[in-house]
Formats: sequence, structure tokens, C-alpha cells
Amino acid sequence: SHSINLAVIPGDGIGQEVVAQGLKVLAAALPQDVKLETKEYDFGAKRYHATGETLTDADVEALKQHDAILLGAIGDPSVPSGVLERGFLLKLRFLFDHHVNLRPSKLLPGVSTPLKGQPEIDFIVVREGTEGPYTGNGGSIRTGTPHEVATEVSVNTAFGVERVVRDAFARAQARPRKKLTLVHKNNVLAYAGHLWTNIFNKVAEEFPEVTTDYLHVDAATIFLVTQPERFDVIVTDNLFGDIITDLAAAVSGGIGVAASGNINPSGEFPSMFEPVHGSAPDIAGQGKADPTATVLSVALLLRHLGHETQAGRIEQAVAADLTERGDSVRTTDEIGDALAVRVAS
Amino acid sequence: SHSINLAVIPGDGIGQEVVAQGLKVLAAALPQDVKLETKEYDFGAKRYHATGETLTDADVEALKQHDAILLGAIGDPSVPSGVLERGFLLKLRFLFDHHVNLRPSKLLPGVSTPLKGQPEIDFIVVREGTEGPYTGNGGSIRTGTPHEVATEVSVNTAFGVERVVRDAFARAQARPRKKLTLVHKNNVLAYAGHLWTNIFNKVAEEFPEVTTDYLHVDAATIFLVTQPERFDVIVTDNLFGDIITDLAAAVSGGIGVAASGNINPSGEFPSMFEPVHGSAPDIAGQGKADPTATVLSVALLLRHLGHETQAGRIEQAVAADLTERGDSVRTTDEIGDALAVRVAS
Ligand SMILES: CC(C)[C@H](C(=O)O)[C@@H](O)C(=O)O
Ligand SMILES: CC(C)[C@H](C(=O)O)[C@@H](O)C(=O)O
Repeated sequence: SHSINLAVIPGDGIGQEVVAQGLKVLAAALPQDVKLETKEYDFGAKRYHATGETLTDADVEALKQHDAILLGAIGDPSVPSGVLERGFLLKLRFLFDHHVNLRPSKLLPGVSTPLKGQPEIDFIVVREGTEGPYTGNGGSIRTGTPHEVATEVSVNTAFGVERVVRDAFARAQARPRKKLTLVHKNNVLAYAGHLWTNIFNKVAEEFPEVTTDYLHVDAATIFLVTQPERFDVIVTDNLFGDIITDLAAAVSGGIGVAASGNINPSGEFPSMFEPVHGSAPDIAGQGKADPTATVLSVALLLRHLGHETQAGRIEQAVAADLTERGDSVRTTDEIGDALAVRVAS
Repeated sequence: SHSINLAVIPGDGIGQEVVAQGLKVLAAALPQDVKLETKEYDFGAKRYHATGETLTDADVEALKQHDAILLGAIGDPSVPSGVLERGFLLKLRFLFDHHVNLRPSKLLPGVSTPLKGQPEIDFIVVREGTEGPYTGNGGSIRTGTPHEVATEVSVNTAFGVERVVRDAFARAQARPRKKLTLVHKNNVLAYAGHLWTNIFNKVAEEFPEVTTDYLHVDAATIFLVTQPERFDVIVTDNLFGDIITDLAAAVSGGIGVAASGNINPSGEFPSMFEPVHGSAPDIAGQGKADPTATVLSVALLLRHLGHETQAGRIEQAVAADLTERGDSVRTTDEIGDALAVRVAS
């Protein structure tokens, strides 16, 4: 396509600052003949306080008109925990059927990690995005009394598991090492675990070149810090994916550089790209936020829209910047400028 | 009490080897006037293959007669994943109401960690042991078809949450730093999350000296590798506790030294002590297993039975051994002997 019609949601806290840099680099990366149209939306804490709304039906209809969504971060201490997360972020992931939650982890040479010995880290996590314990199914009886019972229901369907497992196999197949690890807890969560394991094994037959592997989620966290080089592609459920991708980010350069895509592979609804980090209200407005995660999310966005060359250029610019930044302290804006210059040149 | 009537369950794989060392050190630690009686039980893969049994009603009655249980490890690749875990280990935790699953993490000077800079790690995790996603509630319809739906129900009660939260506050109160962190995912798992958070805040009022803190489980994994020194006591749900204690073990000396207690604080049923590691069939029978985790579990066992001095002596022996072992390669037996000698002297 020769135009990109982008929805931009800066959101809360540092979201504003990092999204500005993402857009700067996006503009620098796009070929002359691709027209970029952006429309900004004001979702987040401010709008919630003013109107009580997180995401209306009209908002959803408006967002549907876009080719993709760039999100900064949503969340603020002034709003009760969960209100914006469930009322906006998860609502969009579910409504737009973002079932492939893609989170790459790559430790670049020279980039700081809490791990000793600068291990080789280069894997992607394909996290299921529309099922599992995230469905909001559950409830509470006798709430607030000494006899309260609260439940959370993890819902897993063959349809939902198979499509994300298939996506992960295809991604593994396309990578040099061709290795896919299923992460679950099938020794305890037996019903969901059997479903995931059976489907994983069934789809594996269609990908004979892909080496497969299974790890319980608890063991996976051990390997993420002791042998992260063992991972190539990981496929996992929504909650396990949430947990291990934060850990993966921590060991591979920190959440300042962790990108993610909430992808609807069919293109029926727009996909949404966002840094893994939150709105970090403690450093908001001070120019301290690292926009790299947002810039890398823009690369995922471009790749999703078919602009592979431009996505690669952004990733190379980030790699060069990370490798060379050393201990330099730069503002959000300076990092964005430096990346835009590299991408344009 | 002037006698200890101990149930010993070596179990599978390296369980046999490590339990032998645990008993050796236990014998060396006990004061002359405490009589130790042990009875060995053959639970695990071998018995399962021979009889199809994992834990019968008669077994449960027999185990109830003991003051405590020492467990090596249960699990073998020859048994389908989950059969022994659910049919034996989780069954016992639930039947004996082991609601306080206690898992200390302490990185001793000189002990290897995958983290840079030898951080100060000294915290305990109080993991709920009888509720959450571990209850086995759930099911599957249209199993094995493209229309399968599999569910897992996390069950959380005010009764179950309050008692473990109270236990954790008491433990935090007794420690120098007096800090307690609740780990959950209350922005997504709203029903269970509110129950945990409300009870945590309510019980906190009774412990004004304890500093409290809340972290989402994903953020907690980040801090476990970037700032583990921030933790003193953590209280969390069964599944989150499973995940973060493996990670905690990995950063604080490895699962070779991670101990745990499945505790019934009322003493109505015997508590069970076990290393966090599994049966490690790949190294079983070769004298390669580190018995330290089992020996430290014996210390937890002694403390639980009121033998604080002896528990402390074992922990000091382990600390001295770990600090001095350097790169020496010793057999399971040699480590056990060295610890027994230190404890006796
Ligand atoms: C904010 C929260 C709802 C979200 C999640 O749990 O998915 C976040 O942690 C993430 O990983 O994108
Ligand atoms: C073996 C398994 C059922 C068990 C658990 O999940 O609790 C283990 O991982 C543990 O942490 O003790």
C-alpha cells in the first residue's frame, strides 16, 4: 500500500514522549512514495477522569478504520488498578482479536544485562493474546466477607491455541535455528495443558524441520537466566507469556528496549504496536524515558504492513545506537533524533 | 518433643541419593536425647508402574501418624506428565492442608549466581499451597476435536488467603527489615486480585511495623534479576509462587541449594519438607546431585518441629560449606559427609 493510515495513542505518563520519538523515526524511515496519515486519540487516565470513558463503541469504530495502531502506554496511579488495563488495553486486544502477541528479545553487543558473561540472547516469544486467564471470566461471591470465594477461569480453545501455535511454527521455520519451545504448566493445569500439548504435537508434524521442546513455565524462568541462548522461538499462553516476556526483557537490555506487537494476522482488524513497558509516571515529563522500545515497536509495525526493508533499517539503526551508546546519558528526544538521523542516512 | 517420628519418601531419580544425605545430616544434628525414628515409603514411579497407585487412603493414614515428612523428589519420564505430580505431591499438599509453602532464598558469599555483581539476596517466599489455579478445578469439552474448550479455575477464598497472608506478615515482623511484598496480577485477574489485595491491606493494619509493597508478577520477575535486594518477604498465590521461586532459586545459588517446606502451621497434619528441584533422571544414580537443598530442607523441618538451635547449626554448616567449596567437584556423598562433619563438630 502506498499510504499508512495510523492511529496514534500516546496514552499516559511517558507514553506521550516515547510515541513522539516513534513517529519521528517512522517518518524518517518511510519511502517518499508512502503517505503517512496519523490521527491521535486521547485514551487513558485524563479522558477517564474527564468522562468516565475508557473505550466507547464509537472509539472502536473509529480505530477500525486505521491500518495499524501505535500505542505509548496506558495507566496511572490516579486510576484504580485494572480499570484502564481491562477497559482499554485488554478490551482492544480482545475486540481486535490480537491473538499473536509478538515479543522479540535480542541482547545486542555492548548492551547492559543483569546476567554475567554477556550471553547470546536472540529469541521471540509468541504469546497468545485472546484467551487463557485473561478472558475476565470469573467472579466473586460473599465479596468482602470472611466467606468470600473469588474465581478466575482460564479459557482455552482448540481454535485459539491452534492458530497461535501454527503462527509460532511458521516463525520458527523461517529462522535459521528453527527451534520452537512450548512453555506451559501441563503437569498441574492438566486440562489446558493437554490441549496445548496435543495441538503443539499435532501441528509439529506439519513442520518436520522445526525442532521442538517443552518446558514448564517455572523451569523456563530458570533457563531464561542461566541459558537464554537455548531459546529461539517460544509459544505460550497469555499469562505465562506476560510473565516470561518481562523477564526476557529484563535480561536482554531492559524494558527500555522491549518492543511488542498485538497482531491480528488476518488483517481483519488493525494490529497494535506498543513498548512492553508501562507509563512510568515517576519519570514522566522529564525526558528520561528511553524511546527505543517504541521505535522497535514501529519496526514491528512496518514489518506487519509489508515494509520489511524499512523495518530492518530501523532495527539496524537501533542496534548501532545501542552498541555505541555506552554510558552516555541522553534525553528521550536526543535518542529519538539520533535514531531518526541513522534511519534517514 | 524428645522423639521425631519421620516419614521418609526418597521418591524417584536423585531423590534417593539426596535424601540419604539429608538423613545423615539430620542424625548428626540431633541432640543425644532426641530419638529419631524413620519409616521409608516407596511412593513414586516404581510403585506406580508396579501397582498403578500413587497414594492410597491407607498410605495417607500411615503418613498422618508421623511428625513430619522428608521428600526427595517425585517424577519420571516413564510416567505421563502430571500423574505423579497431581496424584501424589499435590494430593498430599491438599490433603494435609499445607497452605504455607515456605521457600527461602539466600545468596551466600562466594556462591555462583548468573547475576552480575554478586547482589545481596536474602528473602523468603510464602507461597499459598492449597488454592489458586492448583485446585484441579476445570475441565474439557469436545476433547481432542477442533472444537475443544478446556478450562482451569483458580479458586481463592478469604479463609485461605487470610491465613497465609497473616503467616507472611508474622514472618516479616520477625525479620530485621520487616518488609512484605504482595505479588499478584490484580490488574488482570481482578476477582482474585481484589480478594488478595483487600485482605493484604486489612491484615497490614494489624502489623503497623511491617512495610508493605505490591508488585505485579511480571514486574516481580524483573526485580528478581535487577534488584533482588529489594525483597525481604514475599507472599503470593500458588502459581505465581511456583514460578517466582524457581527464578529466585536460579539467581540465589541454583536449584541445587533451594529448600522448601510444605507447612501446616496448626500441626493438625504432618508438614512435608523437600528440595525445590525435581528428580533429575538424567543425572540419577551417578553421585552428581547436590544434596544441599535437601539438607537445608531438613533444617526447615527441624525448625518447624521446634529444634531451632539444630536448624541453625545445619544452616551454618551449609553456609560454611558453600562459601568454601569454590570449584571443587564432590560427589553427593562427599558433600553429605562434609556437612555432617561440620554439623557434628
Ligand atoms: C498492563 C497489562 C494488562 C499487560 C498484560 O498483562 O498483558 C502488560 O503487562 C503487558 O504485558 O502488556
Ligand atoms: C512438580 C510440581 C507439581 C510442583 C509445583 O508446581 O508446585 C513443583 O514445581 C514445585 O514447585 O514444587
